[in-house]
Amino acid sequence: MLKLYYAASSCALATHIVLEEVGADYSTQRIEFAKEQQKSPEFLKINPKGRVPALVTDRGILTETPAMLVYVAQSFPAAGLAPMADAFAFARMQSFNSYLCSHLHVAHAHRMRGHRWVDADDAHSIAAMRRKVPETVGGAFEMIERDMLEGPWVMGDTYTICDPYLFTLAQWMEKDGVDLARVPRVVDHRHRMSERLAVKKAIAEETA
Amino acid sequence: MLKLYYAASSCALATHIVLEEVGADYSTQRIEFAKEQQKSPEFLKINPKGRVPALVTDRGILTETPAMLVYVAQSFPAAGLAPMADAFAFARMQSFNSYLCSHLHVAHAHRMRGHRWVDADDAHSIAAMRRKVPETVGGAFEMIERDMLEGPWVMGDTYTICDPYLFTLAQWMEKDGVDLARVPRVVDHRHRMSERLAVKKAIAEETA
Ligand SMILES: N[C@@H](CCC(=O)N[C@@H](CS)C(=O)NCC(=O)O)C(=O)O
Ligand SMILES: N[C@@H](CCC(=O)N[C@@H](CS)C(=O)NCC(=O)O)C(=O)O
Repeated sequence: MLKLYYAASSCALATHIVLEEVGADYSTQRIEFAKEQQKSPEFLKINPKGRVPALVTDRGILTETPAMLVYVAQSFPAAGLAPMADAFAFARMQSFNSYLCSHLHVAHAHRMRGHRWVDADDAHSIAAMRRKVPETVGGAFEMIERDMLEGPWVMGDTYTICDPYLFTLAQWMEKDGVDLARVPRVVDHRHRMSERLAVKKAIAEETA
Repeated sequence: MLKLYYAASSCALATHIVLEEVGADYSTQRIEFAKEQQKSPEFLKINPKGRVPALVTDRGILTETPAMLVYVAQSFPAAGLAPMADAFAFARMQSFNSYLCSHLHVAHAHRMRGHRWVDADDAHSIAAMRRKVPETVGGAFEMIERDMLEGPWVMGDTYTICDPYLFTLAQWMEKDGVDLARVPRVVDHRHRMSERLAVKKAIAEETA
């Protein structure tokens, strides 16, 4: 059975939703950031990077959202969440996920985790990073709005693993100071996602 | 025919090497960062993100290194550079590439591109980011050394698309101030890679 390590309001929600979408048999284990459990010796044995998500499988532990999303989709092919047989379509899907992971998510992390990239006591730089987040995260969502989100789903007519991932990061838009008026199609997508049963179930479990 | 947009000493080298490894029929187009060609109107039509690499295919343009690497491997299955039929093995490979893309590469970018995450005239913060790079990039390479690089290749006995990608980012270790003595297996891997014909050919073309 699969086991997902997650934290509340984290990027782990994307994998959580996909596990629901495919009807996987899985359990969850919550990590409390407020208690720094992601840095506990026990959790570092699960993921030495000290981050969520992590997915325990019968062959070993997986980390990194883009890899985990494809893993779940590929393990449950009947759900049709990734066009793996079509190299180009698959690459477009992966490109979208890679942009979320390496650009949008990282831009967002500069709001709360600036100490990763400067000395932890450098209040000036940490505040400077935080101030820039509305512009950087907003810019990434505007890029998605204009050039990437085909509609109604990210890849067009077919719902894929890109959709829960975009939805998950779009949860953070208000706190990141993104001007929602500039990204109406992303807001619309978020709303469409929020009505899916899998999304409701994953969120209900994480907020229970 | 495939066409790769690259810049000298950039992460595009990973895709360039893989194109050589599989024996693809491809051409290259150099982008000069010194002239800011990545932000020219012509190039923004190729990649609106204003970054390299970008790969022109007969079905459209792909960006994002992890997606492009899988695309090339999948398009040339005889080369055996990605275990696509094995969901778990493929996910481990993707997890490695995602870590390079979203963590190691981004840590490195804080040395030269700090203006992405703070105001461009904030010299204090930009210098603070630059100072932290030996620690953050070094820490990522130490994680790879200890927990990820199986040896002799990243995934063990089989050479995969992870190897050119690690090699490419490992090119930057000295300038990033990484203490090479702490990552002997990464250094060893870099040396092993540098002896491959495909690597020599890609580098020769980029430095011609
Ligand atoms: N590239 C990783 C990033 C994972 C990540 O940064 N997770 C955050 C939560 S969204 C985390 O665990 N942060 C805890 C910390 O930084 O201490 C992925 O996409 O899975
Ligand atoms: N996530 C992208 C990152 C691409 C990227 O940042 N490329 C750098 C070169 S290594 C670039 O084009 N920088 C130009 C700039 O920032 O203006 C990938 O992995 O392909």
